[in-house]
Formats: sequence, structure tokens, C-alpha cells
Amino acid sequence: MICSIISIGTELSLGLIFNENSKYIAERVTDMGLECKYMFTVRDSVEEIVNVLKQSLRYSDLIIVNGGLGPTDDDITRKAVAQVLKLKLIRDKSLDETSLKFIRKIKNKRITERLLRQSYIPEGSFPIKPKIGSASGFRAMLGNRKIIFCIPGVPKEMISMFKEDIEPFLKKKIEKDLKEKGLKIKKSILLTTDISETEIEEKVKEIVDEAKEINVQIGITANPGLTKIMLVAKAMDVIKAGENLRKIEKKILNKLGSCFYGKDNSLISDNLKETIKKTGSNLTISTAESVTGGLISSILTDTPGSSEFFLGGIVSYSNYSKVKLLNVDKSILEKYGAVSREVCIEMAKKVKRIFNSDYSLSVTGYAGPEAENKKIGLVYCCILGPDCYEKIYEKFFQGTRSEIKFRTAQFILNELRKSINERC
Amino acid sequence: MICSIISIGTELSLGLIFNENSKYIAERVTDMGLECKYMFTVRDSVEEIVNVLKQSLRYSDLIIVNGGLGPTDDDITRKAVAQVLKLKLIRDKSLDETSLKFIRKIKNKRITERLLRQSYIPEGSFPIKPKIGSASGFRAMLGNRKIIFCIPGVPKEMISMFKEDIEPFLKKKIEKDLKEKGLKIKKSILLTTDISETEIEEKVKEIVDEAKEINVQIGITANPGLTKIMLVAKAMDVIKAGENLRKIEKKILNKLGSCFYGKDNSLISDNLKETIKKTGSNLTISTAESVTGGLISSILTDTPGSSEFFLGGIVSYSNYSKVKLLNVDKSILEKYGAVSREVCIEMAKKVKRIFNSDYSLSVTGYAGPEAENKKIGLVYCCILGPDCYEKIYEKFFQGTRSEIKFRTAQFILNELRKSINERC
Repeated sequence: MICSIISIGTELSLGLIFNENSKYIAERVTDMGLECKYMFTVRDSVEEIVNVLKQSLRYSDLIIVNGGLGPTDDDITRKAVAQVLKLKLIRDKSLDETSLKFIRKIKNKRITERLLRQSYIPEGSFPIKPKIGSASGFRAMLGNRKIIFCIPGVPKEMISMFKEDIEPFLKKKIEKDLKEKGLKIKKSILLTTDISETEIEEKVKEIVDEAKEINVQIGITANPGLTKIMLVAKAMDVIKAGENLRKIEKKILNKLGSCFYGKDNSLISDNLKETIKKTGSNLTISTAESVTGGLISSILTDTPGSSEFFLGGIVSYSNYSKVKLLNVDKSILEKYGAVSREVCIEMAKKVKRIFNSDYSLSVTGYAGPEAENKKIGLVYCCILGPDCYEKIYEKFFQGTRSEIKFRTAQFILNELRKSINERC
Repeated sequence: MICSIISIGTELSLGLIFNENSKYIAERVTDMGLECKYMFTVRDSVEEIVNVLKQSLRYSDLIIVNGGLGPTDDDITRKAVAQVLKLKLIRDKSLDETSLKFIRKIKNKRITERLLRQSYIPEGSFPIKPKIGSASGFRAMLGNRKIIFCIPGVPKEMISMFKEDIEPFLKKKIEKDLKEKGLKIKKSILLTTDISETEIEEKVKEIVDEAKEINVQIGITANPGLTKIMLVAKAMDVIKAGENLRKIEKKILNKLGSCFYGKDNSLISDNLKETIKKTGSNLTISTAESVTGGLISSILTDTPGSSEFFLGGIVSYSNYSKVKLLNVDKSILEKYGAVSREVCIEMAKKVKRIFNSDYSLSVTGYAGPEAENKKIGLVYCCILGPDCYEKIYEKFFQGTRSEIKFRTAQFILNELRKSINERC
């Protein structure tokens, strides 16, 4: 079953917002083993929707239209779909309750009529009641094979309807069509930090050909502080696809070493938590942040249960706070400057003592953009641990202010994870 | 001039990554006053690229294809474009230098041939040398009116080529076509927090019709902690479009009041910085964060120059750190619990004293997901300021762990901005 996705919304065509819906739907559809071939984005215009819908019907059996189902004049998806299917729009009274959901208090004929637009679906199509919001969806068929789903564009409403209605429907259909030929897909994303796209390419280049032979594709995308390796395996059945995927994954992981920290949507701090768990001891961590301004502790606390190992931190953004709070020796600060190896070590020492933690992290640097004659991107990072464990790093990170902050945070958290891992 | 964008990449169709390129191109094209009607996303497949390219040529005069121009087997954009235009692919030797950029050291015939694929363009088309990377682009014409740009898919390379080649070319063309009819577009995004989509709809509903009359569209998208109002004005000339945009913008801002904090890509802390500047005094701020775990100070320090007003903060994630570092009265902590109005005020008082700042912020709450019988989303926020200024808020924020953190940070920073604004 070939799938197309049509996203409707002028704000998308103007580049005002990301098309999160398309990504979501494509991912879910792929997870079900279907192929998503075409993705279209058009404005709120009947003519344009009709055009891409016709195109989609030529090349695919399943079309998921999202957006343009609300009560306002811009919402013209129903009209366009009915036009393409050559069907009349008729009011499905079973939808009235949800269509009028938000109008219980004030009764006004014009508003009521407007809201009731949401009850109209192409004749003979199957209505879908919304669990969230008031915009209803529907499922229409063209002939015996082509299925068109229309669902709202508001992400929350779209996701709800996708999960509650489209997914169960498709799963049932897929089971029925099991005999149908078609490649099944399995995929995973490997997350790395402190390594560039080119370095990864170099490391995995021998694996690429082998992967191709068993139909596993390797793709790399780089963001500052986070380079992702995407693996897509295709095979005649899901089990085979999964096996091939794991085989290549294993080979890549062998090459990557410690710059790999997690899969799919995980955080570096999730891995840190697991690493600590594996040590079997209740290791604790504290932080002293200058250049990252709280980002490290914010990432740490994005991991549920981080209070078990993260005691807290000090954001010593000013020299005053370095001296007053962290008790950094004023003479060291004056002699070497706030961005120096010496001050960085002092910060880590002092925060470790204050929190009485097993490990402490500290960072200081220049994030820019204003740094009069200073080296933007120069960052010192320090890790202190039990038994006089001490590591200090001098790094140059490229990018904007927020990018330098994120690169620094990713780097030091990964180094901490590695240290703990090595020592247990 | 009607524009279509075609993004090529299997990773997009699988929903593995966001289509950032489309958004970028759509935004830039719109900024130049052109209309972006269709956006297509297809996999690395000649057949599929040919299909959407034909479709695009039917409905648009300018087509910007991105992706599939590298040296690997997946990179088949050149082939597909040549096929649609019924042209041969020929090697443009002026591109050899950049095509072979990454192969100077190791000479290997197979690799050289592979890299030289990047020098091939459809006969008669105009080559575009890359400033970044090795994938070259090209500009082809169909007849006298239809322009096809092909540029790389790696975001950095795409952006570079867009800025260096496409933008100047289009600007020249637009100037030449000034006589050509077509609506010009101006847009802006208003950023708000602590207000829902529905509340905004209610507030602006009287303006919507008036806006429509002068061809200004109002759209709203809601993310946790950040609701955006998008305005798009169309008129026969850019000046008129700008005037109409500002007119509606002003009316909306009047209705919004203090939940509006900035435009386009600005941060709430940028506004805070400006607000402090307006007071003419060197106000300083410190933070004591529990539930947000450093996110508030991280947002504050995303604003360049924040070291002028942000002294630092304490992330008191554990009770131990609340007592030890912040010196919160242990009996208060035991009596009321860490998530309480009383502890929140204590935190703000103590951090204000420690940093000797004019203002202090504190937050404590339950971010979930585990909180045994506790109310996930319950958050206390406190602001202390000069002259015994004290505000304490009890809030319930919905969402995931990170969403609750972000909502809390946005809320308190906006309240702080408001307090300072009111008092100056």
C-alpha cells in the first residue's frame, strides 16, 4: 500500500511553521510497514488541494489529508475532497454534538451555522468524531482500493484522530492484506556527540556497501552537538528487516565507540542515569556553570528521576557569584581570568565540596557574540570524581551562542558518562 | 511568479527528520514577495521525482529542487531533471574542482569517477559552484518562463547556495518583472505566553473580519508555553502590504496586553533585557530553581549581553541543596514540603540575599512523570523585588516533563518583565 500525505495550511507554504504533522504521519505509517512515497503541502485553496489530491490518487492507495477541517472560511478541505470524488457534501447529524461543542453558552444562528460546517462530509463516506477539539474527520473511498482519510491540522487533534481511528483501521487492513507483497521497513536512529558527519562517514564507509547488500540504508544528519545516524532496513518480512537492521547497527556501534550515547529520542542524561544505575552505587552529581548558564542542569533534569543523582548546581554567571557563592579564590580569578583552566578547576572543586557530591562538573567560556578580543567558542570543562579523579578539557566550539552552549553541555555530559562507565 | 519546492530524501519520507529546507526556502521566497504554492517531498527515486517535477511545471514558474545532488547512488536528482527536460547530462568541467574537493590525497579511479558525477548538469543549463561542500547545483530553463533551480539537500550547503545564487538571481528578476502583476506579501509573528489559542481567538475575533477586508490573514498556532499569532498581508505593492500589516498588528497588540512579549524569533529574555534598559537603572536578577532545573537561567543566558543583569542562580534540585545552599529554614521545609508557597518564598528571599540582586525569582513544583500521589503540574513561582515587592503564584501547568518546565520558565520570566515594566 503506497501512502501520500497532504498537509493543508497557508502558514506552512509561507514557511512560518515546521510541518510537524507530515513528519509524525510519515513516521507512524512507516512504523506500520507501509511506504510513504509523496508528501504534499498546499495552501488553503480549493484549486490547489484538488490538484495535489488528483496527483496523489494517481500514485497512491492511501491518502492522509490533514488540515482545513475547521469551521472558518479557510477550511475548505471537505469541499475539495468532495469535488475530486464527485460527491455531494451532506450533513452527518451524528457529528453535530462535537461540531457544536464550543457553543453551548452563547446561541447565535450565524455562529451555529458556521460550526455546523464541521458536520458535513462527502456522501457515503465514514464520519470520524473528534475526541479533542470540534473538527470532525472522515474516511472516503474511491472505488474499492483507494482510501482517503481527512483529519484536522491542529497537531493535538491530528495525533488523537490518527491514533484512535487511522491506526486501528490500517492495522486491521494490513493484517488482511498480509499476502500482499511489499517490502517491510524497520528503522532506528543512533545519537552521537563530539564527532562530525565526515568523521562518521569515514568510520562507517566499509559498512555502507555491506549494508546495501542486505538492503539497509545509512544516512547521517548533523546538528551542532548532535550527529544522527539513521538506519533504514527493508525486507520482505518485518523480522528479517529487524535482523538486518540490528546486524548493521552492531557493526556501526563497534566503530563509533564512546561518541554514541543513545537511540531514537533519548537524552544524553538518560544514558548517564543508566550508567550510574549500572555502577550499583548511589553516585551523585553537582554542577557549576558559567558559559552554559544552567543548560547542563536543565538537560540533566529533563530525565525523569534525575533527582536521584543530581543534587543541584550553581550558575555563576558573574565574577561576583564565582567568588561569593562558589568561593573561588579571588587571586586566581584575577590572575588567570574567568575563562581559564585554573578557574574552571576551582569551580569544580568548590561546587563538589558545597554539595558534597561524588562528581562535579564545571564549565567556563566565551559564547559570544560580543567578546572584545576574546576567543568566541573557547570553553574549559572540568570533571572531578572520587579518588582524586580530575579531568580538564580545553575546547573550541563553533556556532551561535545557543549552539556553543549546547555543544558544551553535550560534550561534558558525554565525558562524565564515559568516566563513570570506565570506572565501574 | 508561482513557486514550488521539491525536497528529495528518503529520510524525509520516512519521517526521520523535519523538513527544515522547505520551511527555510518557503520563508525566504515569501520574503521576496513571491508565492510559494506547492511543496513536495519525495524519496530518492527517479520515477517519483519525475512525477512531482512534471506536476510542479504544470502549476508553477519557479521550481526549487533540494537534495539528491551528491556523489552517491542515491543522488539521482540530475538524472530526473534531465529526463523531464528531455536533455542529456553533460560534464561541466568548470565544476570539477569543487566536485573533487575532498579527494586530493587518495587518488582512486572509482572514487574519482563517482565524485565527478557532481560535475554533470543538463545540457545548456547554468552551473552553480558550491561554496560549502562538493555538490554543485544548476539552474535550468524550460521554454522562456519556467525556471528550475537544483541545490544540495545538506542544510548548510543549501542555505549557502540559496543566499549566494538563488536570492540574487531572483531579486534581479523580480525587479525586472516589476510591471508583472501579482500580490506582494508581508508577514510577522507575534509571540505570546500564558494565554491559550482559544483565548486569543476570542480576543481578536472582531479584528479578523476587518483584517480580511484589507487582505490580512490571521493564524494562530499553539505550543506549550508559547502561542504564536501569524499575520500575512497581501497587497499590490510591498509598502501597502506593510502598512496593512502594521495596522492589524497594532489592533491585535492592543487586545493582547501583557501576554505579548516579542516578535518573530525573539526570546522572552530579549524583551526582559530591553525592559531593564528602559528603566535606566542597572537592575540585577538572580534565580533559585527547583522544578525547572536550570532552564530559567539557561533561557536568560541565551540573550546576548545577559551578564549585564543576570548575576547567577542556584539549582536546588534536592532538599539538601535547598537547606545547605539556599539556607532555607529546615522547619519550613519539613512543615510545608518542598513544593509549597512557603518554601518558594523562602527560596526567593535567600537567593536574593546571597546574590544581593534587585530582583530574585524562585520556582518549585512537580514536573512528573513520577510523583506518587502528588499533583503533577503544580508549580509555585515567586518574584521578589526592590521595596519589599513580593509576588507569589500558584499554577497548574499541563504537559510532559519538559513542557511543564518550559511553561513555568516562560510564565515567570513574563511576570518578571511585567513587574519591572509596571514599576518604571
